[in-house]
Formats: sequence, C-alpha cells, structure tokens
Amino acid sequence: MSFNSFGRVFRFTTWGESHGPAIGAVVDGCPPGLPLTEADIQPWLDLRKPGTSKFTTQRREADLVRILSGVFEGRTTGTPISLMIENTDQRSKDYSDVAKAYRPGHADYAYDAKYGFRDYRGGGRSSARETASRVAAGAVARLVIPDVDIFAYVSEIGGDAIDYANFDPAQIGENPFFCPDRQAAQRWEALVDAARLDGSSLGAVVECVASGVPAGWGAPLYAKLDSELAAAMMSINAVKGVEIGDGFAAARLRGEDNADPMRPGADGPAFLANHAGGIAGGISTGQPIKLRVAFKPTSSILIPVDTVTRDGDASQIITKGRHDPCVGIRGVPVVEAMMALVLADQKLLHRAQCGGIGD
Amino acid sequence: MSFNSFGRVFRFTTWGESHGPAIGAVVDGCPPGLPLTEADIQPWLDLRKPGTSKFTTQRREADLVRILSGVFEGRTTGTPISLMIENTDQRSKDYSDVAKAYRPGHADYAYDAKYGFRDYRGGGRSSARETASRVAAGAVARLVIPDVDIFAYVSEIGGDAIDYANFDPAQIGENPFFCPDRQAAQRWEALVDAARLDGSSLGAVVECVASGVPAGWGAPLYAKLDSELAAAMMSINAVKGVEIGDGFAAARLRGEDNADPMRPGADGPAFLANHAGGIAGGISTGQPIKLRVAFKPTSSILIPVDTVTRDGDASQIITKGRHDPCVGIRGVPVVEAMMALVLADQKLLHRAQCGGIGD
Amino acid sequence: MSFNSFGRVFRFTTWGESHGPAIGAVVDGCPPGLPLTEADIQPWLDLRKPGTSKFTTQRREADLVRILSGVFEGRTTGTPISLMIENTDQRSKDYSDVAKAYRPGHADYAYDAKYGFRDYRGGGRSSARETASRVAAGAVARLVIPDVDIFAYVSEIGGDAIDYANFDPAQIGENPFFCPDRQAAQRWEALVDAARLDGSSLGAVVECVASGVPAGWGAPLYAKLDSELAAAMMSINAVKGVEIGDGFAAARLRGEDNADPMRPGADGPAFLANHAGGIAGGISTGQPIKLRVAFKPTSSILIPVDTVTRDGDASQIITKGRHDPCVGIRGVPVVEAMMALVLADQKLLHRAQCGGIGD
Amino acid sequence: MSFNSFGRVFRFTTWGESHGPAIGAVVDGCPPGLPLTEADIQPWLDLRKPGTSKFTTQRREADLVRILSGVFEGRTTGTPISLMIENTDQRSKDYSDVAKAYRPGHADYAYDAKYGFRDYRGGGRSSARETASRVAAGAVARLVIPDVDIFAYVSEIGGDAIDYANFDPAQIGENPFFCPDRQAAQRWEALVDAARLDGSSLGAVVECVASGVPAGWGAPLYAKLDSELAAAMMSINAVKGVEIGDGFAAARLRGEDNADPMRPGADGPAFLANHAGGIAGGISTGQPIKLRVAFKPTSSILIPVDTVTRDGDASQIITKGRHDPCVGIRGVPVVEAMMALVLADQKLLHRAQCGGIGD
Repeated sequence: MSFNSFGRVFRFTTWGESHGPAIGAVVDGCPPGLPLTEADIQPWLDLRKPGTSKFTTQRREADLVRILSGVFEGRTTGTPISLMIENTDQRSKDYSDVAKAYRPGHADYAYDAKYGFRDYRGGGRSSARETASRVAAGAVARLVIPDVDIFAYVSEIGGDAIDYANFDPAQIGENPFFCPDRQAAQRWEALVDAARLDGSSLGAVVECVASGVPAGWGAPLYAKLDSELAAAMMSINAVKGVEIGDGFAAARLRGEDNADPMRPGADGPAFLANHAGGIAGGISTGQPIKLRVAFKPTSSILIPVDTVTRDGDASQIITKGRHDPCVGIRGVPVVEAMMALVLADQKLLHRAQCGGIGD
Repeated sequence: MSFNSFGRVFRFTTWGESHGPAIGAVVDGCPPGLPLTEADIQPWLDLRKPGTSKFTTQRREADLVRILSGVFEGRTTGTPISLMIENTDQRSKDYSDVAKAYRPGHADYAYDAKYGFRDYRGGGRSSARETASRVAAGAVARLVIPDVDIFAYVSEIGGDAIDYANFDPAQIGENPFFCPDRQAAQRWEALVDAARLDGSSLGAVVECVASGVPAGWGAPLYAKLDSELAAAMMSINAVKGVEIGDGFAAARLRGEDNADPMRPGADGPAFLANHAGGIAGGISTGQPIKLRVAFKPTSSILIPVDTVTRDGDASQIITKGRHDPCVGIRGVPVVEAMMALVLADQKLLHRAQCGGIGD
Repeated sequence: MSFNSFGRVFRFTTWGESHGPAIGAVVDGCPPGLPLTEADIQPWLDLRKPGTSKFTTQRREADLVRILSGVFEGRTTGTPISLMIENTDQRSKDYSDVAKAYRPGHADYAYDAKYGFRDYRGGGRSSARETASRVAAGAVARLVIPDVDIFAYVSEIGGDAIDYANFDPAQIGENPFFCPDRQAAQRWEALVDAARLDGSSLGAVVECVASGVPAGWGAPLYAKLDSELAAAMMSINAVKGVEIGDGFAAARLRGEDNADPMRPGADGPAFLANHAGGIAGGISTGQPIKLRVAFKPTSSILIPVDTVTRDGDASQIITKGRHDPCVGIRGVPVVEAMMALVLADQKLLHRAQCGGIGD
Repeated sequence: MSFNSFGRVFRFTTWGESHGPAIGAVVDGCPPGLPLTEADIQPWLDLRKPGTSKFTTQRREADLVRILSGVFEGRTTGTPISLMIENTDQRSKDYSDVAKAYRPGHADYAYDAKYGFRDYRGGGRSSARETASRVAAGAVARLVIPDVDIFAYVSEIGGDAIDYANFDPAQIGENPFFCPDRQAAQRWEALVDAARLDGSSLGAVVECVASGVPAGWGAPLYAKLDSELAAAMMSINAVKGVEIGDGFAAARLRGEDNADPMRPGADGPAFLANHAGGIAGGISTGQPIKLRVAFKPTSSILIPVDTVTRDGDASQIITKGRHDPCVGIRGVPVVEAMMALVLADQKLLHRAQCGGIGD
C-alpha cells in the first residue's frame, strides 16, 4: 500500500519523485488567519538544501517553494495549503546500472518486489529528496505552535560523539554539521571528508528538543505523543532507531533512578530530572520533549558491494552520482519538521477533546 | 485527544481500566472464514498473565477471554470481533495516596493535566493491564499471517545482557524471564529478586523476530513497515526506545559495512547480512523482521520519591500494592502481539493495492 | 471490507449480531468531565426498544445498557466508553429456511457473496438490532452538544403523509408512530395494522431537525456537514434516500426562490427562509439543520417471494418470526442518534481547527 | 475543520481555489503498473470544461491537466499521483460587492462564520471549480475498475423530466445537457435559455448507473457502499439530495413490491427487479448500481436578493460575472467521477479483507 499522508487533524500529504518535474505537499487542517508567505517557509528549506558544503550532496537545487492555495492576502484561510518545489537539477545521467541491479541498503529490491517495477532515477519516491516537502510542511506547522521552541543537532557521527560539557547551542549554525560542540565539529570535518574521499559513508545520531510544550498534549493509547513521534521519525529515510528521553539507557536504570521527582513549582510541579523526555503515559508533562534518532550511513557509496540483477544474476554495484557522505546531517531540519508536525497535530487534537463543552 | 484504535484495514480498538468491571478489544476488518475460538486466544493471554511467578505482579487474574461477536459456527464472519476479559482481582485497597499525589514516572500528573481528573485506581486506563486486550487482538492477527513465525524474548535486564553465543530458542519458555540464555536466566533470578526485595525495579530490553514475511509488505512513506512497528511498540506502556535491525549501532557503521549484500538465491536474492532488520525503504525485503524495544523500570516502587500533591504541596510517595519488579518481562507477549497486528494489517494493505486489477 | 467505526475525533465503533450474546459500542474521543450514568442512556434506548406496541416487532428485549469503561465517579474520563447491551430474547427458532435460501430485499445474498458465508440467525450483523448500539452512543454524543435540540418524527408512512398544518411536536410522544399530526397517527393505526395482518410491510419517511447549532460547524470539502449526515443516515438499515433542506424539491426551484434571504438580526444575519436546511458550503449557517430520510418497507414479510437457494435452485421464501411492519417507525430514535453523533464530532472538529492559536 | 481527502485505501486529496494560480489533486493508493498519461484524463475534463455552450458559464478554461508524479515510463508506480490544472481565466474583476456582503445560497456567510474571513474571489475554495480536480482523480479511478461501466445523465431540469420511453444513451453526448431524451433536450434549450436571460437559474436531477460491479463490494456498516456514495455525492457543490435505487419512492412501496425477486441465473442469482439500486446491506448485489442526485439551482443570479453586509447592514446583492444557469448540467461528469472513486476504493477494500489468507 501507499500512505503518503500523516497527521490526524493537522495533516499533510507529500508527493513527488527525485527526478520528476517537482515535489510537493498539501497541508490540510491548518487553522485560519495565520500570516504565511513563501518567506516563512524558505529559510527552513535553505537549511536542508543540498550543495551547501562538500559534506553534502553536490546536487544543486534552489528548493524554491511556491504556495499554490490556502492563503489569501497573506493569511491562511483554513483550506488546504498546496506547496510545490520544482526539481531543477535532475541530471540526465545514465541510470542503466541502477535500473538493472539492486543497490544493497536501498529500497530498490523492496520496491520492485512490492510494485513490480520502480522509478529508478535517483531513487524515485524513496529518495531523501522527498524530505524537502516535509520541511516545507513543517514550516507551516511551526505557525500553529508559536510558543514551542524546537531545535535539533547532530550529536554523533560515525561513532564520534559530542562532549556535552562543550554543548553550545550557538555553535549549531556555525558549522556544516549542525554540531553544538565546536571541537567535535572540527574532528568531524576530517572524519566526514575521509569517508567521502574513500567513497564510503557514515551514520549519525540526531537529537531534538522541543520546549514550551504545555502539559496535556498526547492521544493515549494508540496515538500517544511518543508513539506519534516514533512513527514520524521512523518514516524519515535512513532512520533505524528512535529513543524518547533516556531511551535504551532507561532500560539500565533502577526505578528510583529513572523516576523524575517533582517539587512544587511556580506553575504546576517542577521536575528535578527528565529521564522521561517530557512524556508520561503518552502525554506531555510540561518538561522539554527530548528524543534521539539514529541515521544509518548513506547507502549510496562508491565501494563495490555484491548484489544481484533484476534478472537474478550475481553482480557488483557502486552508486555513482552525487550523494551525502552522511545523510544524517541534512536530517536535522527534517527531524525538526517532523517534531513540529506532530506537535501541531497533537495541540489541535488536545483542544478538540479537552477544550470544554461550552463554545 | 484519545485514540484507542490501531491499524488501517485490520484494525482494533481497546477499552477498559485496571479496576473497572472488564477490559476488551474490538477487532475489525478480519478476513472471514478463519477458524477461531476462545482456545485460540487463551494461550497467548496465559503467557502474559500476572501472578505466575514471584517475578511478576501478584495480582491474580484468570484473564479468561470471551468472544462476543464476529464468529459463527467457529469461524470468523468478517464482522467485528468483540473480545472481553473480566477483571476479577481489583483489590479494594486504599487509593487515597495515589488520588492525592502524583507518582513520578507514572501518567498521574499528565492525565490530570490533560483531562482535569483521572481514574486513579491501579492507574486506570494507563495501567499495563490494557495490554491483555492487545494480546487477545494479536492472537486474532496471527490467524491472518499463518506463514509468519513471531517470537520475542528478553535480551537484557537491568543492564545484564544475554550472551548470543548461548542463544537457544528452546530456553525461552523454560524460565520466568522469556530468556533464551540459560545462564543469563539464572543470573536474572537473583538480580530481579534483589530488586524486588529492595522495593525497586529494573528495566529490560525485548527483542522480536518475525520470519516468513515475504518481500513487499509496507506502506511508504508514512505507514512504512518500520514506522508502523515503531508506533506500535512505542504505544506499549513503559517503552522508551525502538530499534529496527541494527538500530543505533547502524549509526556507527560505515556504508559498506551496513549494506546487506545479495547474491542469487533459490527464490529471489539471498542476503548475506541483515543489518536492516528485514526492511528497506519501509518495505519488507523477505529477510526476518528484527527489532528491539527498551522498557524502562517499573515506576511503581516502594522507595519513596519526592513529588507534589494535587493541591501543589511537597510530598513523598511510595507505590504500595502488587507490581512487576520488571515490567519488561511480561512485555514479551505484548511485543509479539503488536508485531502480529502490524504485519496482519500490512499484509492486507499490500494485497489491496498490489493484488492486480483483475479480480 | 468491514468498517464498523464512524466519526473523526468523536468516534464510535459498534459490534454484535442479532443472536449473539450481546451487542455494544465503544465511544472514543468523548470530552472528559461530563456527568454520565446508565440512566442518561437508557431513556433513549427505551424509545427504540422493540415490543412496545403491535406496530413494532414482538421481540422482547429489555435493552439494558451497561457502561464498562470510561466513566469514573459518575463522570467521563476522556478514555473510551464501552457500552454493552445483552441479547436476552434470541429465540431458538428454526433458521433452516433462511440458512438455505436468500431473502430478497435482505443482505443475505450480498453477505454470502462477500464473505463466503453468513450468520443467518435473525440477520446476524445486518440486523436492525445493531441500531441499539448507535442509540446508546448517540446518548453520549448528546452530552457533548447540550445546547443543541434534536427531534425527529415520521412524516409519511406507506405514502400517507402528515399535514404540516396539523404539526404539533407535543403529539410525537403520544402515539406509537412518533407522528406529530394526530389525525395522521389515527389513519396510520389502520394502515399499519392492515399491512401487518396482510403479512406485508410499509415504508416511511423520517424527518429530523437540530436547532441550536451555531454557524460554522462543518468540514469542507469531503466531510461537509451534509456529506457526513448523508453518510450517517444512509448507513442505517433500510434507508434509501437522504435530503438536506428542500432536497429534491430544490431541484425544481428557481435560483431566486431557493435563496435564503438574510436581513440584519440581533445576533448575526436573520434568515427569511431555510431551503438549505441550515447548511451552506457544507457548513452550518446557524439555522436549524433539517433533513429527511427514506426508509424502504421492511424486507421481512409473510408474503412469498421468488428467490434462489444457496445451491442455486429456484425457491420461494417467506420470513417468519417477529418483525416490524414498518421499520421506519423505530428508525426515529436512530436518526436522532446519528444526527447527535455527527454534530458532536463536527463541534469538536470545528474547535480543533478554528479555536485560535493561543491556548 | 477542513477535510480535503476522500477514500479509505484508494484516496485522493484536492486543493486549490477558483482564482488561485492552480487547482489539483493527489491520488494515493493507486495500484502500480496501470498505463496512464495525461491523455487518459483530459477527455473527462473536457466533458466538464466550462465555456462550451451558452448553457454553461462563459469562463474559458483549457483545463489542461499535468501529471507531476507517480507515473514512470507511462505506467503508475504505486506512489502518489499529483495532478495539476492551472487556472488561466481568473478575470481581474471587481469583487468588492462579494467581499462586503453575503450572497444568499452561497457559502459566503458560513465560511466567514467558520474561518473568520474568506477568499471571496469567485467563491474561493467553495467554487465548483474544485470539481475539476475530482474529475481528474476520477479518471485515474476508472483505470482501477476497467470492467465497470459508469454513465450519468440529466433526467430533470427545472422540474421538467425526461420521458423514460424516449431513453436513448446515444443521445447523452449529442446535446449540451447530457440528456438521454432528444425531445426533453429540445425543451430544455428554451427552458434554460429563458432562465439565463432572466438572470435566474434552474435546478436539476442527475442519475448515474454503474454496471459491471460484481456482488460483494461494500464495507458494512459505516462505510456501506450506499453510505459512501451518499457522502461522495453530497460533497459535490449544490447537491441537496441522494437516492439509491428507488430512494424516496421505495418509502411508498409495500414490502412485496419493493423486494427484488431472484431466480437461478447463469452466474449466480438473476434478479427480476432492481428497486434496491444494486445494493443490499451496504454490499453490491451484482445488479447495476443506480442513484439519483438533486442539484439546487445555481445560487449566483442576477436577480437581487436581500442580504446583509459583513458589517451587519441590510443590503441587496446580485452576482455578476460568469455563471452556469444550471449547475447540475456540468455536474454529470462530476457525479460519474465520484462514482468511480468510491467503487475503486471499495474494490480494493474488498480485496484486502476477502481475498483469502494465502498470498
């Protein structure tokens, strides 16, 4: 099946392939009256844009977004917002290798097995290019949650983690890795460059924090806030793991160490720890929402890997072309976008049920 | 909001509280004609049943399931299957402590913040008792995927992991921990018992494998197989992390090491590794589906923790009553059930779209 | 497929067969804190209850509803509300005729064609008995829209229509037909009784009015208020037509006659007519919502009809047993319930999107 | 709320306003491998296209559709199909009247009441222009149900009905009214022209028949085939009534006259009548699906109607500009499209549940 929509009441649908004429998203359920122009979306797309450093793919896309509907005189009307981004640098390269054989780690074989054939140009629908649509939709979602502050960063590349003692949010925008630790960023330059020159690739861990979320958002039991976030993150290309709060580390704690004690605070309970990542019973507690996402290394590499052809013959394949040596880096704005999209949806859902009976 | 349904075409809805008269599930969209009696469901419930060893809660529930609809002359009719389990051991204890103050790590404060008040008896709707409904629904789901073999086990308790060199599936049913490593199971006896006697609790990691899933199941992009599994697992009480395949370990691999090479096989490609956990691009590859789930330590402990009362005063709380010292243990049948429920749904979804146009 | 849930954020799922042990509904998404006991539901069920006059089926069901979850100390908790009604008068009659041959007008053949077999006892899932679950769920929905007044009545039986000049709402509860015209009610006594004695049956038209709905509810374009109402009504057994406002009569009006002119009113525009039935562009206008529903004559009759057996042989069939001579009569509380369910859902949906961005 | 998607597994989402840069649809869940080019869609759009006779609006739109995704080398890939139609004849007229006052019969007031403001240019999102997107999506749906033949026609304009004795399907394409009765078509020329010259408008009834639907499609109970069709039709602009089969006329029949008797046929039962419109218990019976749809007269007229301004003052309004004197006429291809969309969805749903357990 194909399910290209996400969200319950604040919903978006994405469409488009890596080498088609355009990609886009339709955002439905957005509240009316919010100021929105292309200029509110473009900066987020620019953060994800390819070709900005040697550490990302050299594909050159302006990624200019166009609003085709749902906005009138600069404000959202409450009707669907259609966002379109033209593909401009679909290089007319030779795809015969990819057409004939399956790239391990890619969706090639799975798509063929499912659909009988596939658009093999640049990965088609399974290309990370689709994530630009999410970032655009996410920019709209941010308007719905103006009091929420979301930021993500890379905390680890190729097993080399940041030192939290060096954590400086101001650094995140100062290096090509969205890295909050200046020293780690320097190490990563060499690390990622070496992988790139080897024709190899590296995995990464992205962390994301959302502060300003009030207590009470979440839709137990099967649209719990953590459940929705896990689904959202795991739907991003190359993601293989999600942790909320302490995640797997919590499995190694004793109950008394994992509890987040409370004391009276100015505005509800003040928590003395946040092992839970701001979510209990699937509902926000008012603490910052914290999660971690594991990106596998980019599957497109120049090192030959054993594979089979569509005809079933043994072969080897390398993936030429323009690729990110570490796809997790450009995952940062995507993780932020998905966080915003989930929170906007949950905010509206919470209001639907718990806004009281009077109008 | 409250969203107590899961699934797209094979769907289930659960209801019920820990101390209400009963809990249950309605399974909708089940194919017709499948042989089904209570005896097909009960064994799975018995695996999850409380009170079977000193390592689980001492609440005594027979957990007898009753089929109220959707089955005629021993076969499913295609109409909704209503499953009910009566609560029989809701002890009429004094809940005044829990009513008045918030148990850290529990959903108490979050539910109050969301809904304005809560059913505090035994955790109400947020109790792990709800998972019995999932296990019952999961037993129905298994009928839909008879060629799929699902098994889960505990791979780590309190940071003490099994040794995969000792891995023996036959051991899983031979100890109270669903542990495939006999030596680890012996160590865990002491470990869990000590925690229990301390009034503390331990976290755990559960691993689950589904073999026999053909290539092609999955609904890209926002109901990807891994995305649905992540949502399903993260919706289980106490789960804080989900990994597909190598998960976070994949973030430390290089591209050539993370690729799962293929060579020609008897029936499609034969994979030489399974770092991906059997899923590429959100679609099954024909390899076993593999995932890992992190359970935090049980939040109900006898060790006092700082908290606040509903009135905002400082307090301390301990959670008396009957609790699992390691809630992850009884999570094993629940993880299996959620795996079955996701796979049944994805099987039917795949057939809907990719079954060809002719009838 | 089987889709036994209805609603977007205020949702309900029904289950159960005519001759199974029980039927029921799970209501999910209900706002918390609403006072609810069985006594709030029972009166609505009593209105629909069979066996209250010779003009309805002689099956005797107490239709006692039991709340199994979602209510604590007399108030809704925001978690799913499970409602169960036991079947007590499933007569152990001989169903061999119905098992072997298809009753024309019934779902027998269609169910067999779809599912391969069917629960033939009393119509199984396709029995109008299921509508008791809707009425129970509708009683909960009414709590969500306390300012809305809903009433329905029969306006026509067997082609004999009421005279609107005689319309008196107080009459609706004074006769067994929910008829607002005393003279028509008297005529219908003879009319329905004659059909009953003939072993025949009659169709009916039910009209429903909801006043107190503010302007602004509705979810354009594919969950428009009229679209949702049409789906809701057409999902009721035996319904074959739905009109909003003037319905088909509007197709015979000229534009200037169909327009509902406005003049300034105390509280927004005052409308001078209501051809539109209170809905424009799929959104409520603040006028009363008005709709009409056509019920076909009960398909269960004692007059033999040509049919075929499951084996494909020619046959004739009559439907013995206890049946309503005019199923539209007991449709009145069901139509009201569906109106309440749609409006409760739309109220919450409206608030979700249009409640403003601040909390 | 805003819900601009329709369908369960074969789904589409539309976007766009009357006077925005473009309108469009995203079709998701389409089976892979179906031959599809713009040429498969364009003829259906041409049927609905404005400006083709003096009996339709004089707005000139080429309505050229462009496929932006989901098709590779001329075949559907199973991924979302993005369809876009540029608006080219949004006349830069003066909308100050419509901006200031509410047109009775239009969605103006309701949109303002709901969203706080509205895109008043040509009706914005509530314009019938949106239906072009449905027709485009419907053309894709037809590929999924190649064995189903769908045709619709106008059976009544302004109260003047066709004579079924004159029914000739070949006539439908031979006049500007989609009228199967040559004599009625001639009468309607004068009738519609007179209304047009009066600055008035007329309502219409559209009938639609789908043959070739096998027995068994439908999703009881809340996505019954008739329920889905009613929702689909009632979501079309200006529709106020829907009848399945005999509809309201069935309410005037006795049970023995409304039953559709069966006798043994070559391929399952042969029905001797089709009062039910091919649907029993919400499931197709194998007979032709038949429905009727009531369109109110176009609300845009040149005859002044009393109304109020946004500021609450009394006023009168006429709707200048280019309008259909009978919007029901161009509703014919839209009704067909919605029929196709519902049937495609139900076909895939049926296969999902009832396709058997083996692969």
